[in-house]
Amino acid sequence: MDKKALYHLSYGVFVLASKADGKMNGCITNTCMQVANSPTRVAVSVLNTNYTCDLIKKSGIFALTMLDDTCTFETIRFFGFQSGRDVVKFGCAELTDRNGIPYLGWQACAMLSCRVTESRDLGSHTLFIAEVEDAKVLSRNAPLTYADYQSRLKPKREEKPEAQERRIIGWRCRICRYYYEGSELPADYVCPLCGHGADDFEPVYES
Amino acid sequence: MDKKALYHLSYGVFVLASKADGKMNGCITNTCMQVANSPTRVAVSVLNTNYTCDLIKKSGIFALTMLDDTCTFETIRFFGFQSGRDVVKFGCAELTDRNGIPYLGWQACAMLSCRVTESRDLGSHTLFIAEVEDAKVLSRNAPLTYADYQSRLKPKREEKPEAQERRIIGWRCRICRYYYEGSELPADYVCPLCGHGADDFEPVYES
Repeated sequence: MDKKALYHLSYGVFVLASKADGKMNGCITNTCMQVANSPTRVAVSVLNTNYTCDLIKKSGIFALTMLDDTCTFETIRFFGFQSGRDVVKFGCAELTDRNGIPYLGWQACAMLSCRVTESRDLGSHTLFIAEVEDAKVLSRNAPLTYADYQSRLKPKREEKPEAQERRIIGWRCRICRYYYEGSELPADYVCPLCGHGADDFEPVYES
Repeated sequence: MDKKALYHLSYGVFVLASKADGKMNGCITNTCMQVANSPTRVAVSVLNTNYTCDLIKKSGIFALTMLDDTCTFETIRFFGFQSGRDVVKFGCAELTDRNGIPYLGWQACAMLSCRVTESRDLGSHTLFIAEVEDAKVLSRNAPLTYADYQSRLKPKREEKPEAQERRIIGWRCRICRYYYEGSELPADYVCPLCGHGADDFEPVYES
């Protein structure tokens, strides 16, 4: 099985936000699609370790901001590569949807306001199926695709001179700086913090 | 609610094929995404009226071909705009996956071989969650996106002279030729045969 085949699935890039018990948070996801009509429903898959996942499970409501092609890496980093358990991502002056969930008014082409109708815990992720209660077009810009993000926005791998003489003691995620201890990183390893794969890790050498 | 916001979700374009009781069929879908790891699982949403949906419900297996940017409208028309209840879409000489399900070896960048682990009937569509049992990269071409299909492959609307003096008696889908009887087509109408929206219908005038 060549898991690289899965990289050919096309996705957008979204800020998924929710709130519960007076807390608000948002994370980056690329997995949202329309799954049914009458009423219009979407499915969203969210890592179970994400704080936003906890909030959606509690409140059953979320807002999805569809990022557009003016989006910068800083926006992805802000929402995607730090946890809402550690930092406050939304203040009090943001745009909010009909349920009081924040969404982005910049670098965004559209938004959906959704209410969960059913959910399935799939182990690594929870799949939420939700009715679209409101929807707005926010700009005329093209949607940011996950392929755009990979080819244009994501920091490039640094080419470093060979260091064969030094021993590898760990691997660091280039995206969120998560540290994996061990000399060999499994080829199918996925960063538990930001979800990027083994290709996005760089070796850490014995000093 | 502005339903045009949903057009900003990004998708690929796929041939979804299955077989059951000795019958094989394939249809076009744009809704497939990875939803979980360990094991790798995808979700696919399929119109309940599609013959391929019946076959997947019976056998619980399917193959997904990811079309690439060399794909022509004829391929989309062949698999998407006629029913496998009326025509044979796969013969006996095709490529098949490990379960004997056909996939395309041309105009395609990757394929997945999948086994359904659970399904949810959502009324208009059934959502299948399936484990990826095999995956192959088929070409180095870029995936065809649904946005490409809309902007580049789909037949353009013909500009016709105004015909205000004649009465509209029905609407015909420009894509699959489905006929809707009635002078007014609802703005949120979706073609029951090919899934295209009201924008893709043209008026039929009293003769």
